[in-house]
Amino acid sequence: MARKNAFYAQSGGVTAVINASACGVIETARKHRDVIGKVYAGRNGIIGALTEDLIDTGKDSVSAIAALRSTPSGAFGSCRFKLKSLEANRREYERLIEVFKAHNIGYFFYNGGGDSADTCFKVSQLSQAMGYAVQAIHVPKTVDNDLPITDCCPGFGSVAKYVAVSALEASFDVRSMERTSTKVFVLEVMGRHAGWIAAAGGLVEDHGIPVVVLFPEIEFDQAKFIARVDKLVRTHGYCTVVVSEGAHYPDGRFLAEQGTRDAFGHAQLGGAAPVVANMVKEALGYKFHWAVADYLQRAARHIASATDAKQAYELGQRAVELALAGHNAVMPTIERVSDTPYRYRIGVAPLAKVANVEKFMPRDFITKDGLGITDKCKRYLLPLIQGEDYPKYKGGLPQYVTLKNVAVAKKLAPFELK
Amino acid sequence: MARKNAFYAQSGGVTAVINASACGVIETARKHRDVIGKVYAGRNGIIGALTEDLIDTGKDSVSAIAALRSTPSGAFGSCRFKLKSLEANRREYERLIEVFKAHNIGYFFYNGGGDSADTCFKVSQLSQAMGYAVQAIHVPKTVDNDLPITDCCPGFGSVAKYVAVSALEASFDVRSMERTSTKVFVLEVMGRHAGWIAAAGGLVEDHGIPVVVLFPEIEFDQAKFIARVDKLVRTHGYCTVVVSEGAHYPDGRFLAEQGTRDAFGHAQLGGAAPVVANMVKEALGYKFHWAVADYLQRAARHIASATDAKQAYELGQRAVELALAGHNAVMPTIERVSDTPYRYRIGVAPLAKVANVEKFMPRDFITKDGLGITDKCKRYLLPLIQGEDYPKYKGGLPQYVTLKNVAVAKKLAPFELK
Repeated sequence: MARKNAFYAQSGGVTAVINASACGVIETARKHRDVIGKVYAGRNGIIGALTEDLIDTGKDSVSAIAALRSTPSGAFGSCRFKLKSLEANRREYERLIEVFKAHNIGYFFYNGGGDSADTCFKVSQLSQAMGYAVQAIHVPKTVDNDLPITDCCPGFGSVAKYVAVSALEASFDVRSMERTSTKVFVLEVMGRHAGWIAAAGGLVEDHGIPVVVLFPEIEFDQAKFIARVDKLVRTHGYCTVVVSEGAHYPDGRFLAEQGTRDAFGHAQLGGAAPVVANMVKEALGYKFHWAVADYLQRAARHIASATDAKQAYELGQRAVELALAGHNAVMPTIERVSDTPYRYRIGVAPLAKVANVEKFMPRDFITKDGLGITDKCKRYLLPLIQGEDYPKYKGGLPQYVTLKNVAVAKKLAPFELK
Repeated sequence: MARKNAFYAQSGGVTAVINASACGVIETARKHRDVIGKVYAGRNGIIGALTEDLIDTGKDSVSAIAALRSTPSGAFGSCRFKLKSLEANRREYERLIEVFKAHNIGYFFYNGGGDSADTCFKVSQLSQAMGYAVQAIHVPKTVDNDLPITDCCPGFGSVAKYVAVSALEASFDVRSMERTSTKVFVLEVMGRHAGWIAAAGGLVEDHGIPVVVLFPEIEFDQAKFIARVDKLVRTHGYCTVVVSEGAHYPDGRFLAEQGTRDAFGHAQLGGAAPVVANMVKEALGYKFHWAVADYLQRAARHIASATDAKQAYELGQRAVELALAGHNAVMPTIERVSDTPYRYRIGVAPLAKVANVEKFMPRDFITKDGLGITDKCKRYLLPLIQGEDYPKYKGGLPQYVTLKNVAVAKKLAPFELK
């Protein structure tokens, strides 16, 4: 096997543990220097490859790379940049191969969600067609948990833990004040198409909290929702609502899109949470509070799931091992063996079956009334939030690492992004 | 000293560590059973005293009471219920004394903020006037950190830590994606009148994060704010804005009050964060995201400051010791001895000097331009967020305690709340 360099890039929305996968890739590659030479990272994801803006990860120390394991965000930069289809923009794919060739890159590790899996697959195909062999391995990552085949996606377990812990804590707060203050608390979470993250909020039910969950998979029924909230408040004195940003009406309109205008007539961007909270106020008169967790949820490395952080690392590690074993156009996956005790093994899936497939919540994970999660869903979710994997702290704040990110000298003419 | 019972109540907005103070009061009282008989708690705060709805804390086990130390929210219920002035409603104060007399209560421990300190003071005064001696001790608590005399208030250190950690994590997230995605992230935090909580967001500056802080103490200057954001984004590629819910225009109007109407013409309750974010978008065109932490911040026991949890416990403990030493109408305080290493002692302040005084951010804690915090402010804040005091977890979620809260038999005629 001729020694080749590797290229690693982070794609799409970052997570609390995507750097743990980077750590797994780099540390494992460093153990195989006879086969894998340097590990280059794309600055700002795939844009770094297109513009030949490569980072030499070898310039960062063993301890800096190790610290990636507990640092949230994308240490090399990520991007929202979807390559067009091969037919529509063959130029971009050819440029990638050209850059790989110029830097003797034989391994392409792409750390992202469904779109990235598709790109990874195409790079693999084109490299064969162009006669420059690149082994393309996808490392799964998405807080949305919507990749097929794999039982779960790194990033999801930690956001699920954040949402469950936050919903539990805020619910305790509301419960202790409902006599004279807030009776309905609304927490908005991510998940534009799939309700996995919102589902995690439903876990507080087994801790005695009356909770309603609004999923993107279920068309919003206002009358039913209001009736449920009212019943819970009458029974328990309060209730918590966890609403997915993707919750929508039967006509597809998001709850967040209320055609709201400010005093100047400008369209006002709100969230689903204030809309739902005001809806409750108007219908039932209950005092409310709402929170929008936004980036706090996916960046919350301080409360990462130990299971998630471990799997993120292992999938990075296994991606390199798969490459060393000669695999191409595949993605390592989590295969669940049992719920209790939780056991899993790492499998492998062909990218042809992963690319552009979204996995939604199964209907039997959602209660019949569409407003909560079933026991089956709880059995699925609970193992994924197990364990705490705290970062080190210094002076009261986590010691997250910022890498040097030293650029590799360019060899090619500039490339213009379109 | 004749043996008397004690009454303890939680008042106003709850915090991540108010139960640690409760734990300090109850555990210390239990060590002095020769002097303090039972410890009764007010169900839903002072309302429990007025309606003779008392909880016998003796019905909860040693381990349940110990678990209060790491459980957020108000374990006995709290309330927003301000007693009117003695002149306006002497009836309520007299009822308190009547209930105390009926249950042989000689110690009144009131755990709250400025309003509660005032109530506590009046109870002390009236008990003397009515010839039934009650020693009234106030235990400070407020995330707003706005009580006078004491260097800091239990509850604040933990919310400050939550805000600093969250702002750091979200800023790392934004930094890694600014090339193609969000450039300005806005985090709204609590603090209607005082900017202490928002100030904690400014701590991320020393971790390399470009940050702007908007305080209630500084009149909002839109042009100056926009110019600062633009400069930071041009220099760093992104910036984080931490805005207090109390940020307002020179005329007193809150940023959150934009006269916003929904599609039906209903007044829309928003937050300051979406307003600020949209303002940036309109002026500069930068892509933004925003979060409103709301109750998540004050309930976040999972990331409580160890310093804060320790002080909360100690002030509850000292409150009982002050009572045993014969004190009345006082509040134990934190007296800072040094910043580095952080050392403090517990002092005592007369309630006459505490009641109804709000402590704002000193001007020299805020930078001249009004958009950040000074080194002096950082030296003040840093010790308060030191140390992590993690709760125990089971099955992925914190093991927070829910007490039995067994009611004490009533002896008096019902009392109607007005």
